[in-house]
Amino acid sequence: MTEKSHQYTRAKAIVQQIEQLAAITEQSGCVTRRYGSPAFVEGAHLVAQWMQEAGLQTRIDAIGNVRGRLVSLNPHAKTLVMASHIDTVVNAGKYDGPLGLLMGIDVAKQIGQSTILLPFHIEIIAFADEEGVRFHTTFLGSQVVTGAFNPQLLAKQDADGITLQQAMSVFGGTAADLPNEAIPANDWLGYFEMHIEQGPVLDNRNLPVAWVSDIAGQKRILVHLTGFAGHAGTVPMSMRQDALCAAAEMVVAIEKFALQQPNLVATVGTLQIPQSASNVIPGNVHFSIDLRSNEPDLLANAYQQLQQLCTHIAQSRNIACNWQLVQHTAPVAAHAPFTQLLQQAIAQAGFPDVSLVSGAGHDAVPVSQVAPIAMLFIRCYKGISHHPAESCNENDIAAALQVADNFLHLLIQQHT
Amino acid sequence: MTEKSHQYTRAKAIVQQIEQLAAITEQSGCVTRRYGSPAFVEGAHLVAQWMQEAGLQTRIDAIGNVRGRLVSLNPHAKTLVMASHIDTVVNAGKYDGPLGLLMGIDVAKQIGQSTILLPFHIEIIAFADEEGVRFHTTFLGSQVVTGAFNPQLLAKQDADGITLQQAMSVFGGTAADLPNEAIPANDWLGYFEMHIEQGPVLDNRNLPVAWVSDIAGQKRILVHLTGFAGHAGTVPMSMRQDALCAAAEMVVAIEKFALQQPNLVATVGTLQIPQSASNVIPGNVHFSIDLRSNEPDLLANAYQQLQQLCTHIAQSRNIACNWQLVQHTAPVAAHAPFTQLLQQAIAQAGFPDVSLVSGAGHDAVPVSQVAPIAMLFIRCYKGISHHPAESCNENDIAAALQVADNFLHLLIQQHT
Repeated sequence: MTEKSHQYTRAKAIVQQIEQLAAITEQSGCVTRRYGSPAFVEGAHLVAQWMQEAGLQTRIDAIGNVRGRLVSLNPHAKTLVMASHIDTVVNAGKYDGPLGLLMGIDVAKQIGQSTILLPFHIEIIAFADEEGVRFHTTFLGSQVVTGAFNPQLLAKQDADGITLQQAMSVFGGTAADLPNEAIPANDWLGYFEMHIEQGPVLDNRNLPVAWVSDIAGQKRILVHLTGFAGHAGTVPMSMRQDALCAAAEMVVAIEKFALQQPNLVATVGTLQIPQSASNVIPGNVHFSIDLRSNEPDLLANAYQQLQQLCTHIAQSRNIACNWQLVQHTAPVAAHAPFTQLLQQAIAQAGFPDVSLVSGAGHDAVPVSQVAPIAMLFIRCYKGISHHPAESCNENDIAAALQVADNFLHLLIQQHT
Repeated sequence: MTEKSHQYTRAKAIVQQIEQLAAITEQSGCVTRRYGSPAFVEGAHLVAQWMQEAGLQTRIDAIGNVRGRLVSLNPHAKTLVMASHIDTVVNAGKYDGPLGLLMGIDVAKQIGQSTILLPFHIEIIAFADEEGVRFHTTFLGSQVVTGAFNPQLLAKQDADGITLQQAMSVFGGTAADLPNEAIPANDWLGYFEMHIEQGPVLDNRNLPVAWVSDIAGQKRILVHLTGFAGHAGTVPMSMRQDALCAAAEMVVAIEKFALQQPNLVATVGTLQIPQSASNVIPGNVHFSIDLRSNEPDLLANAYQQLQQLCTHIAQSRNIACNWQLVQHTAPVAAHAPFTQLLQQAIAQAGFPDVSLVSGAGHDAVPVSQVAPIAMLFIRCYKGISHHPAESCNENDIAAALQVADNFLHLLIQQHT
């Protein structure tokens, strides 16, 4: 078997695993595995089984991360983490998260089955909560692994009033166990994550892979508008305090603003009218704003300007506006020396040296606080992600496996 | 006792009755009396008792309307109906319906206790189902009284699978009795309904009462938008098909359009993003439009123009737009000569001649098919209705009683 056909066989097996994992879902007919749901727990156990079959020392930690280790005999060994996540958005694609994880397991398996003497430990992690859909948080799993988890998050409630502390009990651990799940800062060799691009650039340029130069920073905002409910037939237009009309004007203004900024995206993803009825003027509306850029100043300025825009619209309509920043992550640059090895690995595989900014957040963001990070992006069909049509070509997966194998061998050489 | 203080005493007694009736509810702590519920039946019997005490020949008909007659000795007498409803929405106010009914009983009682020779019969009716909450119908009670009841409605089921036919059996009659409950078209002298405004105009203009010129027609539309979901971080603004941005532009355009039309209101009361998440570009959005006007042409034109507006916005954004008309009721004008008497009654009471369009539907709508209708609106606090804060001032009730007394005396004069 040639090296190329070997990688193609491995890619085929990974796609089969992705299909198996995608079938484990909260709702049949679509892929939904939110953190801590029964489908999530079932998926985590399947991943643990695959890790064991790959020869890794496997366990599920207190927050629900599935962790498999390939142990080095070197007494001074540090740990290389290769990871991605297995929670999903609602009605997700199959590849966002699982692809990078399953490739990591496979790459580690090849090393484990070889005669190579590992100069560092390899830990593969399936992070439990990257999307943050259930608790409106994000990076719960990787924050536990880096030791940055904030215990105040345990009181957060999901839509049914279940707290994070209650939800995590399904994994058998307690809040007190969380600090012990961290990899100490001194023990990190580095962090490598493979992920679908989730954007259209590689597809447009007909390339299988690229290395990631930066991950965009993100601000997530919740806006609560309070007007005055009323009868849809009896309150004249000019006397209304319609919270939905105010929200709609804001959504249009946010879109217009973001269209004028080249390195910025802004999205209103959720909008709710509590106790709505077709014959009642909306008195209350809540919506979210997701704001991203790789330029820290642009992100900060856009945040200020959008807040002013919304405040102004609310005031002009006599609507109360509560503006709440619920998440901020600064833009993160990939670690240059570590990423240079990845560039070398790409060159060895015969692909052009192309870098991308990641508009999506990744677990690499919190990990960058404690370890050198590198990320490899893999082309996905038309850039579609967070959507059932999300898809990834087996040839591209094989190409990415070749790059990852090269990267691991270069790293092993460097530390041997 | 002066005339004014007499009416004030009557108003106080009516408010006490309203409180008594409001205490009869499906759920303590709020006012809910849906058609045919045990609370409704108990309320109907209390109203029947009050009618009897007022000297009316009282019965509960097959659909559950409470009907009390003051009989004329004139062999050619027609019937004047004064009515409102005693069913409620869920968590309703106390005044919507009961106020007009109890004022009607009181006005009839004054006539009955006087030496006046009635040239027509007076029938006071507590309609059984105006809100239509239980069976998603409306005007069941008044449709029986006008002879317009559609027997196909008997098969309609409530949320528990109970049919209307089963529900009405609690009043002791059968479906076969319903046609006999109608007042023959030739026997109607007219229909007079008193009701809280359910809007803020009288409160804003500091007026106790106004006559109703028309009842607005209504079109209810459901709009389904289909764009393309995507990752909030990775799809450039210029490449998006965001269904929420399209909906927001439509909501703003609908509001702007309606603000420019004096006799039109348009309300987007519900808006849903199925499977939404803060980091997902909305791919699908549904929303409702409630469109009302007293001018048939304006309503029809507005409907056409809003459909064109939304279609245009959708096309310019490459969004699919499904537009669905789900309800239409034509506007109804009050009967001019009958309403002129009401204007005269208002002038006699010393109040300015102000008319209002009713944006809400009323039992007067089906009755207008068989009889001249007139309606009197009474100020309610801040225009709040369908809400526990719904409230009505005793002075305004006294003022409305004076107008109603005047109206009855003018009508009696006219027919004597």
